[in-house]
Amino acid sequence: MNENNHLVIMAGGVGSRFWPMSRPDNPKQFIDVLGVGQTLLQLTVSRFGAAFSPDHIWVVTSEQYKNKVHEQLPEIPEDNILLEPCMRNTAPCIAYVAWKICNRYPDATIVVSPSDHFVVDGEMFRATIEQGLNFVRGTSRVLTLGMKPTRPDTGYGYIQQGENVDGSFSKVNAFKEKPVLEVAKQYLSEGGYYWNAGIFMWDAAVAKEAIRTFEPEIAAVMDKMEPSFYTENEQSVVGECFPQCKNISIDYAVMERLGGKEATILGRPSSVYVLPADFGWSDLGTWGSLYTQIEKDDASNAIIGRGKVKMIESNGCMVCASGNVRMVLQGLENYIVAEDNGTLLICKKDQEQRIKEFSSDK
Amino acid sequence: MNENNHLVIMAGGVGSRFWPMSRPDNPKQFIDVLGVGQTLLQLTVSRFGAAFSPDHIWVVTSEQYKNKVHEQLPEIPEDNILLEPCMRNTAPCIAYVAWKICNRYPDATIVVSPSDHFVVDGEMFRATIEQGLNFVRGTSRVLTLGMKPTRPDTGYGYIQQGENVDGSFSKVNAFKEKPVLEVAKQYLSEGGYYWNAGIFMWDAAVAKEAIRTFEPEIAAVMDKMEPSFYTENEQSVVGECFPQCKNISIDYAVMERLGGKEATILGRPSSVYVLPADFGWSDLGTWGSLYTQIEKDDASNAIIGRGKVKMIESNGCMVCASGNVRMVLQGLENYIVAEDNGTLLICKKDQEQRIKEFSSDK
Repeated sequence: MNENNHLVIMAGGVGSRFWPMSRPDNPKQFIDVLGVGQTLLQLTVSRFGAAFSPDHIWVVTSEQYKNKVHEQLPEIPEDNILLEPCMRNTAPCIAYVAWKICNRYPDATIVVSPSDHFVVDGEMFRATIEQGLNFVRGTSRVLTLGMKPTRPDTGYGYIQQGENVDGSFSKVNAFKEKPVLEVAKQYLSEGGYYWNAGIFMWDAAVAKEAIRTFEPEIAAVMDKMEPSFYTENEQSVVGECFPQCKNISIDYAVMERLGGKEATILGRPSSVYVLPADFGWSDLGTWGSLYTQIEKDDASNAIIGRGKVKMIESNGCMVCASGNVRMVLQGLENYIVAEDNGTLLICKKDQEQRIKEFSSDK
Repeated sequence: MNENNHLVIMAGGVGSRFWPMSRPDNPKQFIDVLGVGQTLLQLTVSRFGAAFSPDHIWVVTSEQYKNKVHEQLPEIPEDNILLEPCMRNTAPCIAYVAWKICNRYPDATIVVSPSDHFVVDGEMFRATIEQGLNFVRGTSRVLTLGMKPTRPDTGYGYIQQGENVDGSFSKVNAFKEKPVLEVAKQYLSEGGYYWNAGIFMWDAAVAKEAIRTFEPEIAAVMDKMEPSFYTENEQSVVGECFPQCKNISIDYAVMERLGGKEATILGRPSSVYVLPADFGWSDLGTWGSLYTQIEKDDASNAIIGRGKVKMIESNGCMVCASGNVRMVLQGLENYIVAEDNGTLLICKKDQEQRIKEFSSDK
């Protein structure tokens, strides 16, 4: 791959819908959710393959997770682990890393990726990423990946495809919020809608300029922080300035404002594009989204974790048996059974959107 | 109570149908099944109240459980804890303790009780036991308690009542094996059938003579063991002789042979009698039998153990959450959910007779 390519991994989330496996003190990106011997964060880095050298891989996370990132990705320089002193959603987070990369690598092209997603076909994934990076490099284009939807999922945002521009690539017509079921069904029957996977690519300089255009206050905070980058003062300056940023997602701040429009960034035409992809993807946002992606037994049960599980007259279940747990499950149909460290959740699979309620102490 | 009364508790069982809480290395009589701060064995001793002095309480168990018994019942003299070197069912077990008690207390009247049953009304229980001991004392009668059946349970043996002899007491017409459901239903509609609780009373000398009459080989083994009783050789002699006993239950060996007949024991008329009782009883043989006996919430869920359990849209469930476990259960109807020390069982309540199959490693 091109030596200007940089990978940015966002690893600050708390994964509350994946309870009880994922908890604020150990969210799912740091867990071997699939029981394969690698955490989701490690799988994410592996998935991008050898194309990015370790000093071109950047992780943005919370201060409290610094040690976890360092332990799980020892090959990444400490300077490349960016610590948010507080949660300000994805726009300030991406601004910080874009400013920092651009400071040292002004010609960088970056791909931004969540740390806790799941991809089935790694080879196709890498080819798609390379195709995307080549599409944006040296331009003012912003590219987002659109996952071909396989069901009317109401847990994802959708991207409406517009004019085709270059074979695989189309302009984005609009970003759509998580829809209700009827609307999601309509999207699928109409066609031209894709799941927003939160993976996007742009040149670092374009990212900076787009943020400066749409969120000048965030840009001002970054400009104030920039002189401290790569110095021993960085963390204290960031600790002082970063919390002044407003809490806004990169989707609201930039993508939705630029999507479906024509703008000029760095003197060049700019818009948001979508590259439809079909490498098998789940945001692992919920147990059900994991269920759809992994191998099932003859009775359509998906079982993960290192525990010993015996299924009897059970089908359609998503089972997670962590550690040394032993489970015998009889007569369960379409349930989630998830155990982690002494906490057990059993609920119907179609009720998983209520897991936050289930996990509350009330 | 009469100073000749002795209590014999049989505590050698393995409780396999109460898996995963009960396991061979820690069967249910040694567990605080109900989460009340006392094990079933301790509850059993407490239930008999202050009527038996500690040196008149005897426990028969396996060698491997000696320390558990001693720890849980420190007030009982070590001489009163009888250790079976191997499992030979209840006839040799009761023979051993009858011989041993009679050796020192020839006028003893004994009540034999399982160690792992559950009784709702302790006061009524104690009154029933006293009434029963008075009925057999100084006679050759054998008395068994018959529990008034509340449902056509197929997990219990039944006692068919015969001729009434003395107000509450009747002769036993026959002992019936665990019936199939149709037969159990017939018993209930006919009336005069009681669950066999395995609690019976007789004079120690009568017990000895009855065993000698029906199982002379077992009696011969006991006679050979007797000179060692209360000496330091006892355990080694028992270890040598006891395994020669045939494997047979006291029901087969004595009760069924004496029930419904007239015999002469120690020169006096002998038969088996039944005293119907209604103090609320369960053998805790299965989760379902426990479920029927304990308090339920508004949605008919019975929850035991020290764990923290949150039930959502669930009803009719028997839940056991041991230790520090936390459970959130949604959308479950009529299930058993039992967790103990890292092992979880979920099965439909009406499938609990298959728990041995469920718990096997196959």
